[in-house]
Amino acid sequence: MKNVGFIGLGNMGGPMAINLIKAGFSVSVFDLVPTSVERLTAAGAQAAASAEAAVQNVDVVISMLPASKHVESLYLGEAGLLSKIAPGTLIIDSSTIAPESTRKVADAAKAHGLSMIDAPVSGGVAGAQGGTLTFIVGGSDTALADARPLLEAMGQNIFHAGDAGAGQVAKICNNMLLSVLMSGTAEALQLGVNNGLDPSVLSEIMRKSSGGNWALEVYNPFPGVMETAPASRDYEGGFLVDLMIKDLGLAMASALDTGTATPMGSLARSLYVAHGDNGFGQVDFSSIQKFFQRD
Amino acid sequence: MKNVGFIGLGNMGGPMAINLIKAGFSVSVFDLVPTSVERLTAAGAQAAASAEAAVQNVDVVISMLPASKHVESLYLGEAGLLSKIAPGTLIIDSSTIAPESTRKVADAAKAHGLSMIDAPVSGGVAGAQGGTLTFIVGGSDTALADARPLLEAMGQNIFHAGDAGAGQVAKICNNMLLSVLMSGTAEALQLGVNNGLDPSVLSEIMRKSSGGNWALEVYNPFPGVMETAPASRDYEGGFLVDLMIKDLGLAMASALDTGTATPMGSLARSLYVAHGDNGFGQVDFSSIQKFFQRD
Amino acid sequence: MKNVGFIGLGNMGGPMAINLIKAGFSVSVFDLVPTSVERLTAAGAQAAASAEAAVQNVDVVISMLPASKHVESLYLGEAGLLSKIAPGTLIIDSSTIAPESTRKVADAAKAHGLSMIDAPVSGGVAGAQGGTLTFIVGGSDTALADARPLLEAMGQNIFHAGDAGAGQVAKICNNMLLSVLMSGTAEALQLGVNNGLDPSVLSEIMRKSSGGNWALEVYNPFPGVMETAPASRDYEGGFLVDLMIKDLGLAMASALDTGTATPMGSLARSLYVAHGDNGFGQVDFSSIQKFFQRD
Amino acid sequence: MKNVGFIGLGNMGGPMAINLIKAGFSVSVFDLVPTSVERLTAAGAQAAASAEAAVQNVDVVISMLPASKHVESLYLGEAGLLSKIAPGTLIIDSSTIAPESTRKVADAAKAHGLSMIDAPVSGGVAGAQGGTLTFIVGGSDTALADARPLLEAMGQNIFHAGDAGAGQVAKICNNMLLSVLMSGTAEALQLGVNNGLDPSVLSEIMRKSSGGNWALEVYNPFPGVMETAPASRDYEGGFLVDLMIKDLGLAMASALDTGTATPMGSLARSLYVAHGDNGFGQVDFSSIQKFFQRD
Repeated sequence: MKNVGFIGLGNMGGPMAINLIKAGFSVSVFDLVPTSVERLTAAGAQAAASAEAAVQNVDVVISMLPASKHVESLYLGEAGLLSKIAPGTLIIDSSTIAPESTRKVADAAKAHGLSMIDAPVSGGVAGAQGGTLTFIVGGSDTALADARPLLEAMGQNIFHAGDAGAGQVAKICNNMLLSVLMSGTAEALQLGVNNGLDPSVLSEIMRKSSGGNWALEVYNPFPGVMETAPASRDYEGGFLVDLMIKDLGLAMASALDTGTATPMGSLARSLYVAHGDNGFGQVDFSSIQKFFQRD
Repeated sequence: MKNVGFIGLGNMGGPMAINLIKAGFSVSVFDLVPTSVERLTAAGAQAAASAEAAVQNVDVVISMLPASKHVESLYLGEAGLLSKIAPGTLIIDSSTIAPESTRKVADAAKAHGLSMIDAPVSGGVAGAQGGTLTFIVGGSDTALADARPLLEAMGQNIFHAGDAGAGQVAKICNNMLLSVLMSGTAEALQLGVNNGLDPSVLSEIMRKSSGGNWALEVYNPFPGVMETAPASRDYEGGFLVDLMIKDLGLAMASALDTGTATPMGSLARSLYVAHGDNGFGQVDFSSIQKFFQRD
Repeated sequence: MKNVGFIGLGNMGGPMAINLIKAGFSVSVFDLVPTSVERLTAAGAQAAASAEAAVQNVDVVISMLPASKHVESLYLGEAGLLSKIAPGTLIIDSSTIAPESTRKVADAAKAHGLSMIDAPVSGGVAGAQGGTLTFIVGGSDTALADARPLLEAMGQNIFHAGDAGAGQVAKICNNMLLSVLMSGTAEALQLGVNNGLDPSVLSEIMRKSSGGNWALEVYNPFPGVMETAPASRDYEGGFLVDLMIKDLGLAMASALDTGTATPMGSLARSLYVAHGDNGFGQVDFSSIQKFFQRD
Repeated sequence: MKNVGFIGLGNMGGPMAINLIKAGFSVSVFDLVPTSVERLTAAGAQAAASAEAAVQNVDVVISMLPASKHVESLYLGEAGLLSKIAPGTLIIDSSTIAPESTRKVADAAKAHGLSMIDAPVSGGVAGAQGGTLTFIVGGSDTALADARPLLEAMGQNIFHAGDAGAGQVAKICNNMLLSVLMSGTAEALQLGVNNGLDPSVLSEIMRKSSGGNWALEVYNPFPGVMETAPASRDYEGGFLVDLMIKDLGLAMASALDTGTATPMGSLARSLYVAHGDNGFGQVDFSSIQKFFQRD
């Protein structure tokens, strides 16, 4: 498992591929954007002329693409990559896409004699650069065992959620819950502040009580409470509202597919869409605090 | 601060007073229900014939009553208790009531030369019995310092939220957030399960990820995931849905008073009311999981 | 029933009193704001030096005040107006206040030998000026019969909702429903427009179909669809967002009192509060359309 | 336009085809369920052995199928019906499906030299049988003009919403709004009743006021208020909760596609899904009233 073909070298894929190179893997790369490729060759990758070229003579194919349609279009169909990859090769798709798409590609991969895991990540650009990503994996134990050295070169935590598609499901469930607890935390803090409480004191009380959650622990949405949080640098960087909206879209689509009632997640999605419409699409998602503040 | 007058000996107040006796305080008690009083005298309390009698010759008055109207009616008015308590006495009201009511009583207490803290609790009946309650306190530093030995005899954690009423505010903010994260957690788990995931595996992944929260940590709402949680004993006991509805009512009233938008908390309240209307008022609030399950 | 004491001469009360004068009633008026009183004396009213003075030697007392606290403080208590009004006098309170407050005042009025109806209005300033208000009345048939000539001088439609307080209840139920259907209409129109539909065409289809409602009939929230609607004059005038928030506050308080689940109304309230916080408090409530539009 | 090929003879399609026969059209039919076909031949239709056979030598093809996948699978692909229909033929698809699917089929139809309209219906089984359906049409003026005599044989109202797909969009916007106003009406009525009001009196007041909407006009959800409404026959028949959930799924999918915030519609969907999960999937959608009532 030494030779890797890596497709998709954006903000996330680029640094992930670089970490593989640093860990000693031989990486052949492809992206539609030439400057993204150049950044990788400068770091020691071999540039391939096409996706097909990138996956020749490799043990593992890794893809990191924006959405379901890109992944389906890359792998499936008569001209799809699955028919160009040597049997026995392992595919790691780290894109965050619809579980249904993942399952479709995984089934097709199997029919071509390929094993595949879905391994969407959390941790953002900083995690991709620092090699501290979390991978949430769907697929067989064997495939995950094969993938593990590569995942460990790119991340810190690896969760095995279940069979094909389970990685995607677990990620969108987690991010839906995250949107709910971030909105709920922001609103609870605002209610306290509107009653004259100090947001730091209230945050600390709730953090240690039954309201405790990840936002209060490491990502407080109220400006000034937590020096290291995006809230204290005007919500710059971090996990963008537009990306949260994308993930919530996947969660909602899955709720429709499975007939699940998701009142809290649906409401959070609508709040985030309205927040994005107000011009906050490109700032951190903890800026939902501003939704609750008086102008 | 050795002599205590304790008013309100219900499921919470009763065991709290017993813990004071065990800690060596001399406790004079009153309740409208004779059997509640008898339980306390059996434990070493002195029965008082009236609320007024209970607060004579004491250093501290503690009250633990169901709602704002009971607290206002006890302390305020021409025949109210404030005019019967010796100046310099400390009042600890541990009832969970509207911040506005607390502030009204605290102001009146001050006018009578009395100091007062609001010290609503969390931890439920088990916490009251075990002396492991959490107190969230509003009031001056001095008053809290005076109250501390008594609070420590009844509880484990003491938070100072701010001035008069701040204890109530912090508690209702926390419980509103709790209702949101419990509903959100239940819905995220259901979405995962409806997609074929194992609720234990998904719980563990989210617990360690950005969806992490108190429910996933110690109070998982999905049956079978956490042996010690109410979900694994058919939601018996715990923090009743009807009590959560009461606390959410206080949060909503405070949101109205302060003109705060609380979309997530309001929705959680409506879900809990509908859930209670379906016959779940007297089971643990994590039973909201059933709201998301198909019959 | 010829002599009227009128208290509260604001944007609504002022023109209502003027319509009574035009209809031949003799009207004695009081307001804390001198210019409001002057406008009325110019129209033929007698200025009274106090509320108490305004209600001497009258057959009917009408009040039009901002909120529950003003009404309670006017009528109740030892110095309250109820003890200054001659037995047999009819009281018409046209303020929009909490049903609970109305019932409290009506009970006290009865104890003083006075009959009373609650008669909150809809129709806004234009309706008050044009004498085309709608009155929603709570109280006895007899009291309403007595009040009818006066109500007819000020309005066009009179509904009898039930006993004391029922006028308030019916009004807040109606306005809660109105907030829901206005938000729902705005969101449905936006979904259509975002799909390329013409808002006028879509409005007309839904108006004649099962989506038909008052907003589509006479108050379309989408700019340009309905020439006479506030949406076509940049949402100026009309029924202000801040007033809708006030009415939704009364509805929510009533939902808390009665333990009613109001998921749609609660959500509409939060949307309106967030909308108001964004700077739209002083424009027409159909401007909620902007909440759904991309900046 | 005298010869019609009709595919899909279920609860809706069957009676629609019968009305065409009654109006003098010659109708060739196909359905996978033999008894559905027999019912039609008994009414004067010619049974075709396949979908392909049904569309030979006809002027118009009408389809009435359950979901997007059935319509796409019928018309598209190498073996799809579009390649079997003579150029110049008009296609009327009356299925309620995703606008995106409709547009895909309409584009493909055009490429085959066929014109097509999407003409989803409202009015239910009773409307299909009585020939009183409402058609909401997307497509060109010419195509609609050609289709009109057939639509008039099956329905009463015809709306032209815009280009291809617009019929679907307008229908799902309308039904999303309908779900919102039905839920909102039910909740407003419950708030009134919980305050002691008579539901008939309150309904009448709101119907004539700014809360007026289709539900209050002809489809009151409160039992006993409107004799002819499903609420007065234990919610039997009518527009089933499961069908409303289907339409709300289409609306939500469209909201995701277009990035539209739909807080009210999303919440209504979740309420309806939870209501269906409680065992109400096969009763009329106005039964959402029960969601708000105490057991």
